[in-house]
Amino acid sequence: MKLTFVTGNTHKFREAERILKEYNVIIGRKDVNCEEIRSESCEEIALTCLRLLRRKVNKPFFVEDSGLFINALNGFPGTLSSWVFKKIGNGGILELLREKQSRDAYFLSAIAAWDGGREKVLTGKVDGHISLELRGKGFGYDPIFIPAGSDKTFGEDEKVKFLCSHRRNSLRKLAEWIGR
Amino acid sequence: MKLTFVTGNTHKFREAERILKEYNVIIGRKDVNCEEIRSESCEEIALTCLRLLRRKVNKPFFVEDSGLFINALNGFPGTLSSWVFKKIGNGGILELLREKQSRDAYFLSAIAAWDGGREKVLTGKVDGHISLELRGKGFGYDPIFIPAGSDKTFGEDEKVKFLCSHRRNSLRKLAEWIGR
Repeated sequence: MKLTFVTGNTHKFREAERILKEYNVIIGRKDVNCEEIRSESCEEIALTCLRLLRRKVNKPFFVEDSGLFINALNGFPGTLSSWVFKKIGNGGILELLREKQSRDAYFLSAIAAWDGGREKVLTGKVDGHISLELRGKGFGYDPIFIPAGSDKTFGEDEKVKFLCSHRRNSLRKLAEWIGR
Repeated sequence: MKLTFVTGNTHKFREAERILKEYNVIIGRKDVNCEEIRSESCEEIALTCLRLLRRKVNKPFFVEDSGLFINALNGFPGTLSSWVFKKIGNGGILELLREKQSRDAYFLSAIAAWDGGREKVLTGKVDGHISLELRGKGFGYDPIFIPAGSDKTFGEDEKVKFLCSHRRNSLRKLAEWIGR
């Protein structure tokens, strides 16, 4: 089945294309923006977006919503990660954690998919913590997120990100659901 | 004319009731939540909310959206001020400004009103800066906002807040529009 990934984010599309290919799922891209709702849940945002787009997209497709959730900041920046990043950047997150005891955080990815008949929400999560300073390059919060079991940020070790990211997890579940 | 203030916020309602009374405008309250859109503009949020509620509220009414905009943080927390406050509080804002040169900020209030025939957007603004530490009590960001010309935060001097706040400005314009 050919699936369409509806996303305005080129970076996300390339990552998904590369991962899903391993599972023999070929995807195309449609660049339609979804009027995002306000919610604390990536799953709810993705599903609402899927339902809004069902009218516009007449073939099997999926959308994805993700965020970084920091425990000591009550889940901030969470579902508004992308907006917060544009405003205060990684420097702002490091300032906010300067005097916090815990630096625990997780990335969450929620995919909402429609296969032409049914809809499904699939999530992926990666636990970890926020580094003490910016390390490496990469996209968004990658240079400050260290996944559990590693001593490098996603920005320092792209391979680790590619192999264990929240998005890989949700995409793997998507491939399994599509191939069921 | 009796006006209804549609708001889920008791604090805002009491403040508006007290101020509008000076202008001989009596208000009632309706506690209906508006599904907020994502926007960088308080005016757009208020107007969209007004239009969504027009179906539910069958009498002259208004809604209000406000935010604190900090220059050195690209307008953060802006239209998401209330959400950001719940997550990181005033302590978080002070951390984010720790090493910034400028502490300039402003509060903006946007009212969207419907008088039974026409709709109108009215705004009020108060310039100022963010204090170096928490001072005084009060609601939300009041203890860290010092209006231009004063050396006290809104939290230290409730009277100053009552006399020169962004919300007083937008409410005064509302009273003028209603009484035109």
